[in-house]
Amino acid sequence: MSKTIELTKELISRQSVTPEDCGCQAIMAEHLSQAGFINETLQIEEVTNLWSLRGQGSPLFVFAGHTDVVPVGDVSKWNSHPFDPVVDGDVLTGRGAADMKGSLAAMVVAVERFVAKHPEHKGTIAFLITSDEEGDAHHGTKAVMDILSDRGIKIDWALVGEPSSTERVGDVIKNGRRGSMLGRLVIHGIQGHVAYPHLAKNPVHMVAPVLAELSTEVWDEGNDYFPATSFQVSNFNSGTGASNVIPGTAEVQFSFRFSTEVTPEQLQSRVRDILDRHALEYELTFDLKGEPFLTDKGALVAAAVQAIKQVNGEEPVLSTAGGTSDGRFIAPTGAQVLELGPVNRTIHQINECVSVRDLDLLTDMYEQILINLLA
Amino acid sequence: MSKTIELTKELISRQSVTPEDCGCQAIMAEHLSQAGFINETLQIEEVTNLWSLRGQGSPLFVFAGHTDVVPVGDVSKWNSHPFDPVVDGDVLTGRGAADMKGSLAAMVVAVERFVAKHPEHKGTIAFLITSDEEGDAHHGTKAVMDILSDRGIKIDWALVGEPSSTERVGDVIKNGRRGSMLGRLVIHGIQGHVAYPHLAKNPVHMVAPVLAELSTEVWDEGNDYFPATSFQVSNFNSGTGASNVIPGTAEVQFSFRFSTEVTPEQLQSRVRDILDRHALEYELTFDLKGEPFLTDKGALVAAAVQAIKQVNGEEPVLSTAGGTSDGRFIAPTGAQVLELGPVNRTIHQINECVSVRDLDLLTDMYEQILINLLA
Ligand SMILES: [Zn+2]
Ligand SMILES: [Zn+2]
Repeated sequence: MSKTIELTKELISRQSVTPEDCGCQAIMAEHLSQAGFINETLQIEEVTNLWSLRGQGSPLFVFAGHTDVVPVGDVSKWNSHPFDPVVDGDVLTGRGAADMKGSLAAMVVAVERFVAKHPEHKGTIAFLITSDEEGDAHHGTKAVMDILSDRGIKIDWALVGEPSSTERVGDVIKNGRRGSMLGRLVIHGIQGHVAYPHLAKNPVHMVAPVLAELSTEVWDEGNDYFPATSFQVSNFNSGTGASNVIPGTAEVQFSFRFSTEVTPEQLQSRVRDILDRHALEYELTFDLKGEPFLTDKGALVAAAVQAIKQVNGEEPVLSTAGGTSDGRFIAPTGAQVLELGPVNRTIHQINECVSVRDLDLLTDMYEQILINLLA
Repeated sequence: MSKTIELTKELISRQSVTPEDCGCQAIMAEHLSQAGFINETLQIEEVTNLWSLRGQGSPLFVFAGHTDVVPVGDVSKWNSHPFDPVVDGDVLTGRGAADMKGSLAAMVVAVERFVAKHPEHKGTIAFLITSDEEGDAHHGTKAVMDILSDRGIKIDWALVGEPSSTERVGDVIKNGRRGSMLGRLVIHGIQGHVAYPHLAKNPVHMVAPVLAELSTEVWDEGNDYFPATSFQVSNFNSGTGASNVIPGTAEVQFSFRFSTEVTPEQLQSRVRDILDRHALEYELTFDLKGEPFLTDKGALVAAAVQAIKQVNGEEPVLSTAGGTSDGRFIAPTGAQVLELGPVNRTIHQINECVSVRDLDLLTDMYEQILINLLA
């Protein structure tokens, strides 16, 4: 069993459900320390963050990732205990195997190998690891980036270990992400009895044509890098539970995933325009979770594409699809940000698993990227 | 203080929150027994019903009503205790004062007076009183009507004591009610992550244009006796609570109040037609609560209109508006059904109250109706 697989298993056995770290970062720090890194733990409220450095000066290359995992769900549905990693043939099963303790192990082992061969590498290698990526993410990467900014530290390249691949490791790398914005809409009607509809105003009736319009609106067509902006209602609640009462309010929660073709401000004002056209009494609030970002074909993308080809001959597809990642907190500083990790098919699910061979290939890819950039 | 007010207070002091009777019917039965009635208690599960008869043969005139009351709500908001009736000037306050213990007392006192003067009245006078009008109503008037049907008993005239009046007692009598039908619609989509909308089908998006259509549909124009049929959504729920999940289903509950211009079957098929036109995967169930009924200008309406004029010179308006009543269970047997009771402005509310003078007038009206029909 490779060092990567051993370390992955060790990390999985820590029950680090978000925002817990459960000693995972200490295990990583121990390895990094022996490889010549200076470790710093940035504890922010309940969140544990590791900031670790080796080398000096520019360029600053950062491995970014998280030790927290999502809850396991119904344990009885797992074929093995989620925190008791099991290798069966090529398959390693356990919570966090793919998202993203396998990547963390691959990063550490790749760095160990690289610094053994290149003790005098160019620039600086760093690790930015948090225990709060799956949760609120307030005190994780975002907070660490604020601290780095205060210190005047500027990241050139960030490689995030999120599981970017779809079929085989390295078939897809994410060179950006869509923006994410939540909205909450409350429609005010007038509560009443269904027998006296002329004394009431039904907010469900009032909002129905608005939602019909919002859900068919073409917000943009996307572009070469981003799919079209998408609007989705996530929650809709109205009514007292009684069958004879016309509700007084209706509450709608929705989510935008948006491209670089629109700004959050444009989306907000277009939603308001549609509402105003229907002459409703409403409250509307937005919560911008992350601006879209894109890392164009520069040194980092080139090094990663080349490394993947060198390791297994694969030509990776560049993509910006899928959920958000902590890359949204790193990219705004001007850093080039790339996500490369194992196959994401089972993440957040029962029986989360990863290919053993893929994790070993991923270790090779990470090492090769370091060679391509810093040897 | 009149006998009607004394009896009303005695009934209010019994805490007969639906489906409890708390001895109210026994108090009424004691009075009726002394007036020559034969009482029968029909206990059906938790519901107490009184069936009481005096006289013989046709026509059969029935006073119908209920001893149960709706819950009192926040007791601290009442000016006096809801079950401790208080008379202040012309105002009698207490839960059930208007709906409908005042009417019950007025019926009993009216009958006492009438039979004292007309011991050999025509036909039969009856009381059909339940303790389950405000609740499920499964074991109340509906069940008693089934028993009467088994016995071959046919009601000619039913006078329901529901509070029909709006400003002064007798200004409005209800000679019918709209039909009532509930519907429950479940739209099946495909649950998913907001970041991958192409893998999901959002049931809120799918149902929005359907609701826009249902809520603006003209079901009919009503007629001389009935207002137009009305559709109202009472409850709408969809979503897991999470902001990043596209819900898998949406559940909508709605209510029809309908005129005699449409049948329940027509409404059901028109709802299905609209849904089918939108090509949705759905489940749809209906619960018919009551067919509309109408008592046209016959002997009962004439006797009531005349009695109200005789008592206070008022020309009553005939109406079919407002909520359902137990009349819906009596009318289908072919009986003429009329509702006449006190002002309904405070029913089901905090500080429910009634005019003392109105209850005394109502007693006179009830007595006069008996005189007009059975003297
Ligand atoms: Zn992750
Ligand atoms: Zn009532």
